Amino acid sequence: MRFILVDWGTTRFRAFVVDGETIVDRVSSDEGVSALREGQHREVFLKHCRDWLAREPQAPVALVGMVGSREGWRMAPYAPCPAGPEEIAGAMIEVEVEGGRKGHIIPGLVCEPDAGAVDVMRGEETLCLGAGISDGLICLPGTHPKWVEMKAGRIERFATYFTGEMYALLRHHSMVGRPATEPEDPAGFDRGLDAAERNGGLSGRRVGLLHLIFGARAAAVTGRLPSEQLGPYISGLLTGDEINGAFSLFAKPGRVAAIGDEGRIALFSRALARHGVAVDSVPAETALIAGLARILAHHRI
Amino acid sequence: MRFILVDWGTTRFRAFVVDGETIVDRVSSDEGVSALREGQHREVFLKHCRDWLAREPQAPVALVGMVGSREGWRMAPYAPCPAGPEEIAGAMIEVEVEGGRKGHIIPGLVCEPDAGAVDVMRGEETLCLGAGISDGLICLPGTHPKWVEMKAGRIERFATYFTGEMYALLRHHSMVGRPATEPEDPAGFDRGLDAAERNGGLSGRRVGLLHLIFGARAAAVTGRLPSEQLGPYISGLLTGDEINGAFSLFAKPGRVAAIGDEGRIALFSRALARHGVAVDSVPAETALIAGLARILAHHRI
Repeated sequence: MRFILVDWGTTRFRAFVVDGETIVDRVSSDEGVSALREGQHREVFLKHCRDWLAREPQAPVALVGMVGSREGWRMAPYAPCPAGPEEIAGAMIEVEVEGGRKGHIIPGLVCEPDAGAVDVMRGEETLCLGAGISDGLICLPGTHPKWVEMKAGRIERFATYFTGEMYALLRHHSMVGRPATEPEDPAGFDRGLDAAERNGGLSGRRVGLLHLIFGARAAAVTGRLPSEQLGPYISGLLTGDEINGAFSLFAKPGRVAAIGDEGRIALFSRALARHGVAVDSVPAETALIAGLARILAHHRI
Repeated sequence: MRFILVDWGTTRFRAFVVDGETIVDRVSSDEGVSALREGQHREVFLKHCRDWLAREPQAPVALVGMVGSREGWRMAPYAPCPAGPEEIAGAMIEVEVEGGRKGHIIPGLVCEPDAGAVDVMRGEETLCLGAGISDGLICLPGTHPKWVEMKAGRIERFATYFTGEMYALLRHHSMVGRPATEPEDPAGFDRGLDAAERNGGLSGRRVGLLHLIFGARAAAVTGRLPSEQLGPYISGLLTGDEINGAFSLFAKPGRVAAIGDEGRIALFSRALARHGVAVDSVPAETALIAGLARILAHHRI
């Protein structure tokens, strides 16, 4: 099957023509949804994809990611978890792309595991369905990393962490990161992981992340932590505490799949190795295309 | 005994003439140490206190707070915990204020409760020694709140949290706080405390603070949390998790003493009431003067 796939996030527009599992054409730009005003989305889409529409008159057009948010082309209400390809296909919404032809926006998912607790995703649902994991845990490192539990090929539940944005806040906008210098010494990352163990819950050690964050500053101002280790230390501390939380929420597996930036996955693997957990890296484009194919297989045009 | 007391922090200069436990004169300005360059401190001090020096030729001069930091008048090395008035008096360092007359900088304290763990304070040691608590817990809410354990009239150990600065980062510089609107609805604070219970460790609930912070955004974007509740919600979430950490580190008492801003202490009391802990508010100036008097009682001029 041929299809046109648009992966449209907050900061990037990326579109593909896919034949089976092979990308036969692609285009990208920095016209993410945060750069656009209401009403501009069709115009941007057609600028990049009009030729493809003519060349592939039968190909379904699918749009994934923040394009379905309130700031996107058209709001696609979140589908509830647990959800598999069938539920997600059933919750797609339409936009008109050109001359009556429809594009289909993949809805994000909402997870409400607990009274007063709610979590959301947009785009990651498609990656997870294409990661080749029927049962197990998938991690998606990034600005707002997600841990996703798969069960019988469906997304059972998930949790999002504030790790990446928190790193940027602490490193660049807080008193904690101010003493940090570059070039960085990566040895600080392991020392940050050590510190996170003080909040790991083992033998009652639970000093609190807010205490550990101030501790990074105290270690720097007392000279216990060299200034070139401070940036990686903050990263290790936050990564370690994300993992503390995830392994309290989800049963700790022997392996996890990870989808995302290679450098970030390497650090993540280093942190998970302390817990005896191995990481299988899954290329994001492969997962995106396979996931979308699974969703479209349930789609009656 | 009469003494001249300078409480010189990051953002404020405040000086007092004290007779026994009574303030007989006072002056303040916004010439905190962060506003000054090296070498300017004596000049600022004399501008405000020269008349007092002439009028009180025998009065000891004591300086408390960030004035003893690297960015202050002169660096006063941290004294190690546990420490009482005698150890702190013995670790004071001198600066020349005028014509050979000395001023005495109260050192801050360092606490190293654990391998690789370090915490520091400057100024709070004096407040705690004057809080009238011989054995028990003292809390000092603020930008970087501190919990201090007193034992036999000495400071046994303490822990600092990043709560106040984290609130400012999340509310004003992050994606989490962006949807927040004013006027605020204070009901959000209790909902934030509810959310913090998911990281309280009771019945294994430990979802992680980084997850709960993202959850505030998810609750806002899904409409579960009204935008006017979001600011107080973030405050409640962070306050609740500070308390989670403190009651894991320190044995939970029936009452705690609190020194700081009244409005903040009111919120803090509300959060602690959930844990069955009562709060006794201690006025900061009273504690400062009583604490300094205890230190100076061990000082041989």
